[in-house]
Amino acid sequence: MAHALRLAEHGRYTTQPNPRVGCVIAHGSDVVGIGWHQRAGEPHAEVFALREAGTRAQGATAYVTLEPCAHHGRTPPCADALVAAGVARVVIAAEDPFPQVAGRGIEKLRAAGISVDTGLMREAARELNIGFFSRIERGRPWLRVKLAMSLDGRTALANGESKWITGEAAREDVQRWRARSSAILSGSGTVLADNPRLTVRLVGDGFVAPLRVVLDRQLRTPSGSHVLDGAAPTLLLHAPTANRDDSRFAAVECVAVAEQDGALDLHAVLAMLAERGCNEVHVEAGPTLCGALFAAGLVDELLLYIAPLLLGDGARPLLCLPPLADMAARWQLHTLDRRQLGDDTRLLLRPQDPQGMALP
Amino acid sequence: MAHALRLAEHGRYTTQPNPRVGCVIAHGSDVVGIGWHQRAGEPHAEVFALREAGTRAQGATAYVTLEPCAHHGRTPPCADALVAAGVARVVIAAEDPFPQVAGRGIEKLRAAGISVDTGLMREAARELNIGFFSRIERGRPWLRVKLAMSLDGRTALANGESKWITGEAAREDVQRWRARSSAILSGSGTVLADNPRLTVRLVGDGFVAPLRVVLDRQLRTPSGSHVLDGAAPTLLLHAPTANRDDSRFAAVECVAVAEQDGALDLHAVLAMLAERGCNEVHVEAGPTLCGALFAAGLVDELLLYIAPLLLGDGARPLLCLPPLADMAARWQLHTLDRRQLGDDTRLLLRPQDPQGMALP
Repeated sequence: MAHALRLAEHGRYTTQPNPRVGCVIAHGSDVVGIGWHQRAGEPHAEVFALREAGTRAQGATAYVTLEPCAHHGRTPPCADALVAAGVARVVIAAEDPFPQVAGRGIEKLRAAGISVDTGLMREAARELNIGFFSRIERGRPWLRVKLAMSLDGRTALANGESKWITGEAAREDVQRWRARSSAILSGSGTVLADNPRLTVRLVGDGFVAPLRVVLDRQLRTPSGSHVLDGAAPTLLLHAPTANRDDSRFAAVECVAVAEQDGALDLHAVLAMLAERGCNEVHVEAGPTLCGALFAAGLVDELLLYIAPLLLGDGARPLLCLPPLADMAARWQLHTLDRRQLGDDTRLLLRPQDPQGMALP
Repeated sequence: MAHALRLAEHGRYTTQPNPRVGCVIAHGSDVVGIGWHQRAGEPHAEVFALREAGTRAQGATAYVTLEPCAHHGRTPPCADALVAAGVARVVIAAEDPFPQVAGRGIEKLRAAGISVDTGLMREAARELNIGFFSRIERGRPWLRVKLAMSLDGRTALANGESKWITGEAAREDVQRWRARSSAILSGSGTVLADNPRLTVRLVGDGFVAPLRVVLDRQLRTPSGSHVLDGAAPTLLLHAPTANRDDSRFAAVECVAVAEQDGALDLHAVLAMLAERGCNEVHVEAGPTLCGALFAAGLVDELLLYIAPLLLGDGARPLLCLPPLADMAARWQLHTLDRRQLGDDTRLLLRPQDPQGMALP
């Protein structure tokens, strides 16, 4: 199963909106076929592995990181293919919560007399597709906020200057996190201040370009902004009253979202992104939007880059959050991973209890 | 020499104001004597090692982390003892800059026909006694600022509440840094807000209690403050005009320091602490004093504990620093060490060029 999980990782940048899945077919310790899902619309992991195994699949054990599908989507059901190939046993890491599968794949296999075991390395399999599980189980994407700051928690000088706080290794790392995401979310304040491209600048991975999403309540994004250049699919979310009949929006999609307390309803934004198949959403925004996402309890992960420099208390804060009454009210997280990137430190953190997700 | 350096580390908490020194006497790979300096006034490392070696010191090689002393201090010169014992060769990691030694130890040994080599693991030997070298070479202690903050660079709530940001492992770690220091420096603002003890709460290491130093320009420290309790030697530094004739200062020493720009002259403070034999000074203070030390270029090391929680932009800043004109003016540091302490992250950083110190 560890091998199958590593195979699934090959699809890290390419399977969206589908989950990353790997499959290994083996007789004892002899591997006779391997496969992974590469791209939506193309064959699933099991199909590649069965093709390689050929007749050696008969009586073999198939290790699959996710429950085989039971429905005709863009490809025929994998459960049927496993039955047809004559495998004797299927070991599944995680059950598929997708309504058209959800146990039916397992039922199909068992009905055909195949022995089925589930749960081997389930946690790792769920982590691999955390965004997919989030979207199907919670109806909203897995939200990862990326922030880069000085040692004293500052993201820019008082005048807004912020290039560059972190070093090259950290900035390159950010590109990989962008690439694995279905969407990159920002706010109009950041667009106005920094004019970011919000694209993935990586070569040769054949990744699916993430959707650029800008929360722009009043449609302030000016003509000439990189996000309007059509270099990637782009969604501008605005208040119902904003006027989107403007030629500068020719290359992008403008969609109205309900407002709440004078801002776009963030829950509605995430529900919409889930409906559009977004699994992981990567946020690169200013202290107001990031703070609002934290305050709304919508942040599932914080990806924090800390550069070894000081900017002082006049510089811009990391997050705007409602004032705390006492230390007991602090926003507590726990650290999943810490590492060095060049001279910068990267922390990956999660809230103590990401809402509604069963996690290790 | 690596062995001798490890031996020297045994004196980490006890040798001050003397340097930490270790000595190994060997014939080839046979170690015949080891020793380390334990406490000022007691024998030096070489003496312990020679005692253990006895007649086997004849023709042996002595590895010493610091140049053997050549003067009669509280103990007789170690160079003489090495000569008398008949060692054939002495290998020295670092030369002793102390004016009464400074090459004379080496001269004495060579004059007696002993072969002397210097510089083996010199950098590690200098790091081991960074405070001693700083005091002798620069006339000021090695200044280490300890700060504990949230992920967003905040040290306390707006109302001042700060207990506890970091976890138990981090707070215990701080005790060890306090213990290895000659002095713990704070400001009257911190004394008034937090009433800290500024003592070392460690058991069984036989450490020398660090001098408590409070910068209290106007002698505002109120009666009943822990720093006035006489639990450790304490120095209150104040402006020449402040009135120190008050019974609440009975258990502490009050010394006037010149003022500069309406605050105590920080250079004068450090010069005074160096004169009193302080090697490493550990700072636990608020954003104003810590920021002033940074702004004056007096900080040699930043010991930063980062707790996985968020306090928001209404909470207290890490450091008050003069505003920066642009990013080129940022306070750049480099990271020596990063590690996990419980759920907290500890970074040890230094300015790119600690003033006037030759460092790796």
